[in-house]
Amino acid sequence: MKYGYFDDKNKEYVITTPKTPTPWINYLGNHSFYSLISNTSGGYSYFCDAKFMRITRYRYNSLPLDMDGKYLYIKDQDTVWNPTFKPTQTELDDYECRIGMGYNLFRSSKNGVEACVRDFVPWDAPCELQEITITNQSDQEKDLELFSYVEWCLWNAVDDMSNFQRNLNIAEMMVEDSLICHFTEYRERRRHYSFYAVDTAIHGYDVNRDSFVGNYRSIAVPVAVERGKCSNSNLVDGYPIAAHQIHLHLMPGEKKTCTFMLGYAKNKKDEKWEREGKANICLARQMLREYFAPGRVEEEFEKLQKNWRELLSHYQVQSKNTHVNRMVNIWNQYQCITTFRVCRTASYYESGLGRQIGFRDSCQDLLGFVHIVPEEARERILNIASIQKEDGSAYHQYQPLTKKGNMDVGGGFNDDPLWFLAAVSAYLRETGDFPILKEMVTYADSKVTENILDHMRRAFSYFSEHLGPHGLPQIGRADWNDCLNLNCFSQEPGESFQVTGPSEGKIAESVYIAGMYVKLF
Amino acid sequence: MKYGYFDDKNKEYVITTPKTPTPWINYLGNHSFYSLISNTSGGYSYFCDAKFMRITRYRYNSLPLDMDGKYLYIKDQDTVWNPTFKPTQTELDDYECRIGMGYNLFRSSKNGVEACVRDFVPWDAPCELQEITITNQSDQEKDLELFSYVEWCLWNAVDDMSNFQRNLNIAEMMVEDSLICHFTEYRERRRHYSFYAVDTAIHGYDVNRDSFVGNYRSIAVPVAVERGKCSNSNLVDGYPIAAHQIHLHLMPGEKKTCTFMLGYAKNKKDEKWEREGKANICLARQMLREYFAPGRVEEEFEKLQKNWRELLSHYQVQSKNTHVNRMVNIWNQYQCITTFRVCRTASYYESGLGRQIGFRDSCQDLLGFVHIVPEEARERILNIASIQKEDGSAYHQYQPLTKKGNMDVGGGFNDDPLWFLAAVSAYLRETGDFPILKEMVTYADSKVTENILDHMRRAFSYFSEHLGPHGLPQIGRADWNDCLNLNCFSQEPGESFQVTGPSEGKIAESVYIAGMYVKLF
Repeated sequence: MKYGYFDDKNKEYVITTPKTPTPWINYLGNHSFYSLISNTSGGYSYFCDAKFMRITRYRYNSLPLDMDGKYLYIKDQDTVWNPTFKPTQTELDDYECRIGMGYNLFRSSKNGVEACVRDFVPWDAPCELQEITITNQSDQEKDLELFSYVEWCLWNAVDDMSNFQRNLNIAEMMVEDSLICHFTEYRERRRHYSFYAVDTAIHGYDVNRDSFVGNYRSIAVPVAVERGKCSNSNLVDGYPIAAHQIHLHLMPGEKKTCTFMLGYAKNKKDEKWEREGKANICLARQMLREYFAPGRVEEEFEKLQKNWRELLSHYQVQSKNTHVNRMVNIWNQYQCITTFRVCRTASYYESGLGRQIGFRDSCQDLLGFVHIVPEEARERILNIASIQKEDGSAYHQYQPLTKKGNMDVGGGFNDDPLWFLAAVSAYLRETGDFPILKEMVTYADSKVTENILDHMRRAFSYFSEHLGPHGLPQIGRADWNDCLNLNCFSQEPGESFQVTGPSEGKIAESVYIAGMYVKLF
Repeated sequence: MKYGYFDDKNKEYVITTPKTPTPWINYLGNHSFYSLISNTSGGYSYFCDAKFMRITRYRYNSLPLDMDGKYLYIKDQDTVWNPTFKPTQTELDDYECRIGMGYNLFRSSKNGVEACVRDFVPWDAPCELQEITITNQSDQEKDLELFSYVEWCLWNAVDDMSNFQRNLNIAEMMVEDSLICHFTEYRERRRHYSFYAVDTAIHGYDVNRDSFVGNYRSIAVPVAVERGKCSNSNLVDGYPIAAHQIHLHLMPGEKKTCTFMLGYAKNKKDEKWEREGKANICLARQMLREYFAPGRVEEEFEKLQKNWRELLSHYQVQSKNTHVNRMVNIWNQYQCITTFRVCRTASYYESGLGRQIGFRDSCQDLLGFVHIVPEEARERILNIASIQKEDGSAYHQYQPLTKKGNMDVGGGFNDDPLWFLAAVSAYLRETGDFPILKEMVTYADSKVTENILDHMRRAFSYFSEHLGPHGLPQIGRADWNDCLNLNCFSQEPGESFQVTGPSEGKIAESVYIAGMYVKLF
């Protein structure tokens, strides 16, 4: 293959050039803290909800493409380069990116300096660890400056990219040694903050984007990196970032390792302040102590690998076809797990701004996931049952933080009820967990609480009571063929692409839903 | 002054360096077609509504700053430069930008080539004209390639920056000689299109951003410009642009002029198609014929200047203080006119995505505008009267295309009613147009139609019936001090910054509204 190859033994895909046709994205994270990361370290992080709890900023459709991320810069005399190629795009002497189960490994070199970057989200902590090992492979002493860089998102990703008269004036930062904390809105109405730290003594930092990047410059040529010196900037208004500077003196053959942590922490209500006006950052300090303890990063990485091996072990085939084995045993399951957990809310094309956890999506995704972690599938079934309405229909999406139905999108996608039946029955066949049918769940639009079996009955009733003139199911607003066949009735600019219209009446029927009925019953 | 000086005779501010602390924006356009343009030709265009009818794409908060616009590139051997400095940021031998009344003039030079760019929106046409005159001031023959570049917005500016799984697949373009038309959604549900053309024979074009800019590149180094050749690209999916290439052979001392037009056209319902599947572009062709006729650009520029002189002539002072004269006679009035017409919907900080025409804003802006074009002030009074509610309160904003109240924002800003009284009385004092009080206008939330005087009475009643415990006016959601004192009651991320809350009850009072009452009565 032109851009890399599979390494089945390590369950990795090895990309051998940074110049892939588009950025190739991996998902780091498991349960709450997620990072999208490309093969050139582009991407962003969020906590649970890609819209409301965005931790770092990302510009979709930027030019050049994929130009926000967690970047490390190395300044070696007059040469500035990134171990992950971007954003400088300085040509590398060597480059490799290993896409693994929940991690990316980069190995690259330039002018006799090798950099290995290991990037992963620990199995059960709300942070991302970014470990870099720099080796002087030359026969000269090297004096290098290492810089880190992330740009903070002001939490609400939609507001962050549109409400500038506000968000140019609200950023708040705090620095304590290498621990750079982002506190925007903490004073007013948040108990959470994000932070970026490194386990090594630093020789400078910046929290002000203008100071680090420079006016009219891009992150391809930050002024601080060019001159080899951060300015220990403050931030009074404008855009908050976190950048560290570390001076490295390396003898020939010598290597040094630094680990960066990007984290999220949420305080209890009555532990918000250390003292008046001083935010309590004990949680961040505690996380740094734990994860920066000697050997811990390696331990966490091994734990991550072990847990992924376990996840993938539930279903393994050994056929004579390498491609089948590779796909079934590694990559398809890996995709299914990520799809189920991230639930299509954030991807390279899905900006994470609009949609939430889908009802139909969850049912579909569950089919490929239920054998891997049945407990999570069970939890999802209960969650989506709670956005069903009393008439058996459902909100089409729910908000991951509140678990409430998404009012903006509403309901009326008439395939949703049947998908619920498909999902629960798949879950039952896989697990034999018939007690789930007795779990009591309240409907979204009433105070009626019934068990899951009743929810299924109401879903079926909704389906069977909404038939069109030919006895086929009414489509409502759409069925799951909505990308091809979405009802468009808006005539005027500014109307929603997907509006209610004639299809919601009693005429328009869905062959897709009918086919689904035939398959299911 | 460090960055330029006032030229009072020409009513211009002359910027002498492209490296201003932030981009300095001028507004081109008068009634429907608007362009924001910076002193380095950054900015964007829209028709009537900055959110729903965005013509060209702009990335707020881009890095580097202000990196979308209408750009001309000159390739002179191995040197590529922009007469407006950006996006290449190639150092210029000379640079000047004259910010005038409804136009920008750029004059710059590099390596013996001078470029003068005149950019304006004609007084009464939905287009922007961009005229460039290139002079060979060297003693050598010059072979230059001139490139133009704009990137289309897919109309709805919010969808355009968020819904990528959709908008990477919907762009449609058509090219006819130098006329490059942008037709996205025209087939489905629009009758309008935008276009970019030049009055000169072209030697190449591009409509596909990837072809022109190149993968992983920025518009600072488009691959087509670097190699000196467009590729006459098609667009099947991806992002649509319009770029022209013009070869110029210039003898020493010789000069050539080209004029580009960026336009908007809307067909009648039954004139949408020239023939099946072929959009009717007669309107665009007609505009090109008219405005590219010999001498017409000069005529239009003179007309623009004459009309602006007339607008500013209604109120002129001749004091002994140059600064007072300059501010009162030129710049303050210019600002007031722009503010009234654009109504703060789009600026360097206001992304044009969210807000619409404000009720309070209109009343305030009218105070500084009513003496200039009373007819427009009258029309605005009738428009905002129609978003008043029967109880005398009002929607806080209306949508410029439909003139309907903005449901998302709603009402409850309790200073709005008094502002209506302030605006109408200012209008009456300026014009003596008492017949306006008899104009009949229907309320937004009922079928009741009453005259303007009744609207004023209801506004006053609303004010006087909503007093708090101290007899001061209830604030409702906010008064016009909302940037300092906005009521924030949301506790959880994801809630609106400006939510309804306790202030909407009968307790919270507004000293601002009370002071306003004292001033008015």
